[in-house]
Amino acid sequence: GSSSKRLKDLSRCQLAFLAAVLNPLNFVSRTKTCGELRSCHVGQEVTLCGWIQYQRHGLFLVLRDFQGLTQIIIPQDEVRRMPTGDIEVKAKTAEVLNSCKKLPFEIKDFVKKTEALRMQYRYLDLRSFQMQYNLKLRSQVVMRMREYLCNLHGFVDVETPTLFKRTPGGAKEFVVPSREPGKFYSLPQSPQQFKQLLMIGGLDRYFQVARCYRDEGSKSDRQPEFTQIDIEMSFVDQAGIQCLIEGLLQYSWPEERGPITTPFPSMSYAEALASYGTDKPDTRFGMKIVDVNDIFKSAELGFLQNALNMPQGTIQAICIPQGAKHLKSKDFESLKESAESQFNQGILHFILRPDGTLKSPVSRFLNEKQKSDLIKAVKAEVDDLVLLAAGEHMECSILGKLRLETADLLEARGLALRDPAAFHFLWVVDFPLFLPKEKNPVELESAHHPFTAPHPSDADLLYTEPAKVRSQHYDLVLNGSEIGGGSIRIHNAKQQRFVLEAVLKEDTELLSHLLEALEYGAPPHGGIALGLDRLICLITGASSIRDVIAFPKSFKGRDLMSNAPDYIVPEELEPYHIQVAWPTAQAEVKTN
Amino acid sequence: GSSSKRLKDLSRCQLAFLAAVLNPLNFVSRTKTCGELRSCHVGQEVTLCGWIQYQRHGLFLVLRDFQGLTQIIIPQDEVRRMPTGDIEVKAKTAEVLNSCKKLPFEIKDFVKKTEALRMQYRYLDLRSFQMQYNLKLRSQVVMRMREYLCNLHGFVDVETPTLFKRTPGGAKEFVVPSREPGKFYSLPQSPQQFKQLLMIGGLDRYFQVARCYRDEGSKSDRQPEFTQIDIEMSFVDQAGIQCLIEGLLQYSWPEERGPITTPFPSMSYAEALASYGTDKPDTRFGMKIVDVNDIFKSAELGFLQNALNMPQGTIQAICIPQGAKHLKSKDFESLKESAESQFNQGILHFILRPDGTLKSPVSRFLNEKQKSDLIKAVKAEVDDLVLLAAGEHMECSILGKLRLETADLLEARGLALRDPAAFHFLWVVDFPLFLPKEKNPVELESAHHPFTAPHPSDADLLYTEPAKVRSQHYDLVLNGSEIGGGSIRIHNAKQQRFVLEAVLKEDTELLSHLLEALEYGAPPHGGIALGLDRLICLITGASSIRDVIAFPKSFKGRDLMSNAPDYIVPEELEPYHIQVAWPTAQAEVKTN
Repeated sequence: GSSSKRLKDLSRCQLAFLAAVLNPLNFVSRTKTCGELRSCHVGQEVTLCGWIQYQRHGLFLVLRDFQGLTQIIIPQDEVRRMPTGDIEVKAKTAEVLNSCKKLPFEIKDFVKKTEALRMQYRYLDLRSFQMQYNLKLRSQVVMRMREYLCNLHGFVDVETPTLFKRTPGGAKEFVVPSREPGKFYSLPQSPQQFKQLLMIGGLDRYFQVARCYRDEGSKSDRQPEFTQIDIEMSFVDQAGIQCLIEGLLQYSWPEERGPITTPFPSMSYAEALASYGTDKPDTRFGMKIVDVNDIFKSAELGFLQNALNMPQGTIQAICIPQGAKHLKSKDFESLKESAESQFNQGILHFILRPDGTLKSPVSRFLNEKQKSDLIKAVKAEVDDLVLLAAGEHMECSILGKLRLETADLLEARGLALRDPAAFHFLWVVDFPLFLPKEKNPVELESAHHPFTAPHPSDADLLYTEPAKVRSQHYDLVLNGSEIGGGSIRIHNAKQQRFVLEAVLKEDTELLSHLLEALEYGAPPHGGIALGLDRLICLITGASSIRDVIAFPKSFKGRDLMSNAPDYIVPEELEPYHIQVAWPTAQAEVKTN
Repeated sequence: GSSSKRLKDLSRCQLAFLAAVLNPLNFVSRTKTCGELRSCHVGQEVTLCGWIQYQRHGLFLVLRDFQGLTQIIIPQDEVRRMPTGDIEVKAKTAEVLNSCKKLPFEIKDFVKKTEALRMQYRYLDLRSFQMQYNLKLRSQVVMRMREYLCNLHGFVDVETPTLFKRTPGGAKEFVVPSREPGKFYSLPQSPQQFKQLLMIGGLDRYFQVARCYRDEGSKSDRQPEFTQIDIEMSFVDQAGIQCLIEGLLQYSWPEERGPITTPFPSMSYAEALASYGTDKPDTRFGMKIVDVNDIFKSAELGFLQNALNMPQGTIQAICIPQGAKHLKSKDFESLKESAESQFNQGILHFILRPDGTLKSPVSRFLNEKQKSDLIKAVKAEVDDLVLLAAGEHMECSILGKLRLETADLLEARGLALRDPAAFHFLWVVDFPLFLPKEKNPVELESAHHPFTAPHPSDADLLYTEPAKVRSQHYDLVLNGSEIGGGSIRIHNAKQQRFVLEAVLKEDTELLSHLLEALEYGAPPHGGIALGLDRLICLITGASSIRDVIAFPKSFKGRDLMSNAPDYIVPEELEPYHIQVAWPTAQAEVKTN
């Protein structure tokens, strides 16, 4: 059955090839697109449709459509090749389909315009080559992902509701009033519950290009609605999901971005924090963090000693190759200021002189052994810059940030540190299942979400020392950005209840349907979600996710083109049994 | 460029074929699925995963997964063929992956369960063969639609926002409070504005499988969120869109439903109303409405004369072949009652006797010529039943409804009138651009939406007699259900403003961005939207759209599994500056 079906698909694909020769001219009156004309068309009569990009003295004009540009000349004959090799069309008849008033900005990529102006006239901004390229590429990548999941691997594309129930702790969920007084839907942050319920429903392999919602107020590179490639499978383990995703990205990767190699490297959460000071390391360059506690155990510098005396105290260093050569003293200042302002912490810097000695304001407080051990530990060479920080809980923090800032500074000084054409994928694994709550560290919260399964080797610890349990969560990192995350889920109702009630102290009432569902023979299952906006942003090299979304919102969540959100007359709220609770000051303005 | 790219796709498709041989076993621990085992596997060792469908005395059990069923036997050896030809697996080791408490209903298709129970335990309901078949088919049809649009015809899949601004007259739009006091987003009923703005942005060929929202309160076969295949093209005419959609449906049509032939027939709105009494005719059977005014001009029956004396009065008939044979007298009664209760109108019935005479209570009030003319006009044969109605404005009403009710009655009596395997597509075209408002017939409203372009032949009438203008709107009807609709849009800003302001008297402020966009060189464009839920429902023969949606809402818009929508504590509404306006009675209950 299944193989004869595939053969049929194959022949339809050949049909697609034949039909594509005519594309994109079916169904429309034009016979050629502007981007299509070549030498072989010289002498032909053609019909083109498009926008006038440029015109001069009624002698010639340049016509633009979604495919490209063509020069039209008024007096001479038909399609002809110009001395430059370009193709030119002689107009026989021309029809003005519509007029255009003066544009607020020119449709040329090099013409700078403010983001606000671009957003207000988004439909004009969409005429730029770059925006059209980004949206076309996005569409193509998603299409190939679908082919891989649906046609190659038997996944079923299932649409799940976006009008749903609030999830526990879902403080970032938009609410939607219903016609039942006091009752609200929530716009879910992900289809997490539905994908698990589909596995319980026996659907085996689910995927969806899912619209998700998160109300985070003003955040610069987030959108109130965003898209994720959402995947879930039954009877699968972590390695299975990782292999699936590697194949997915390899299959859908745009050819013009070069091939990517699989399997992707993997790094534990602990190693990521130790070596890169972050759980999403940018592995396109070195400058790893080195632990130098042992070297300075007996150093007489007070602030190093203080750090070592703290319970979680540590001394760490990074080495910036040729840093002394490329960075200026104001760069050092900027790094120190950054450490000061973001972490309220001082850093030390050392430069390895050509004579092998270390230059540093604190150099004289260190003995020769300490200096040579430091040079050895960070593998410093002549003209390298070494940054040293000391304190408590430095993981995830100061040197990880300074490493990235230094990379930016070096690139600003002209050093090609990170190849813009390089794509470094990395799996980060073995996350802790729980983390201490920021506001009350004796209580635990989920490091990701409460449905994450414990690591099989740590399963027993769950009931004795939950804080030490590693999870079966995995993040996918690309060039230092998290582009996806997922986990093997808990499929045992008792274990899920224990996590929610005993460890997290959550009210399980909001999740009673899911807990009950787990009792009806839930299969082992796991999945992942890829952040599509960010992934496409990295592939295209766009500077913001707003450049890969057709109609994005401003960082305040506004649509500047239509002016949404907007006021609504009270009568239109009546069916929903809500009224506006005006903040006092504004209420006065309104009632004036 | 484009042809070499297509060749690459072709070879990837071949790759897909090779990879599919292993599907769906990649990434998981099992080596075979339950539906897969055949004679060729006899003697092999296999690993299966699934649910226990049935077991007896620990001797054998039936394992079920998404692909099918396999019998497992405990004592004997490996995979073997049973005398019946089925394949059986001998268990070497078995691992219980999870337990299952007593199910609220058996997972067997023939076990009847109430809709409420199915909805409450939707994840169990999803284990039924029928639901899994429907969702799989839906996924496959949509995938093939994407291949057709994206790979064959160069459409770009563009995601448009669902947090948007209210549209004029959008009384059915859910509101979403924002963090700005008094300001709300709306969940749009369709991406109509965005698709037009994309054309103005030069994107040429857009499609999206778009989630749409409509708050219609309690309606049985509607969902508050639904999905449409949304399409828009530039430089296209009505014939182009129709040809595109015919190709789309033909390409994506499931093989097991037999081929569909194109082009689809077309019928004007006027003809649909005259012959079928509806703008969505079910053309799988005849029984067309016949105008018999002329025959009864001089009839002495008062109620026929009264009808003819009204300004829009008319006398119409339908002939039900063999109706006298199949329908019982209580069926006649039911039809009469229906005419009475729904239309407050009487109908006459006639039966053509074997001797060529008409049997009817009013037969003696008609002369022989009138009788024979009626027989001729409706082409009645012996044992046919003729229904006759008279009144004003009968279009769209009584005989159209009775025609369908009669069809139901005939089928209930065992007559195979409508072939359940037949798919009759029909384009309905030449709709009026405006219709008189129901509540105030001297004012006009859009028959569809205000962006619909007038018919080219009627363009001048727009400014003189707008009520007479036909539009460039087209509906696609399948077996009497509307499954899609679209139009060529107005691309001229002045014309659009005239329609909105002069004809419809709308406040254009809410649409100022679209009106302005039309001034910046909007191309001629048009599109269509297909209702995916209903289309899949018709293809699968499901009795409700709830059977082709994984997690549907009840007819009151409730999710019975999670109990959404639900109450929210007032603090969670605070960030959105809203509060519940309790209806008085309920407010008392709440404050008790």
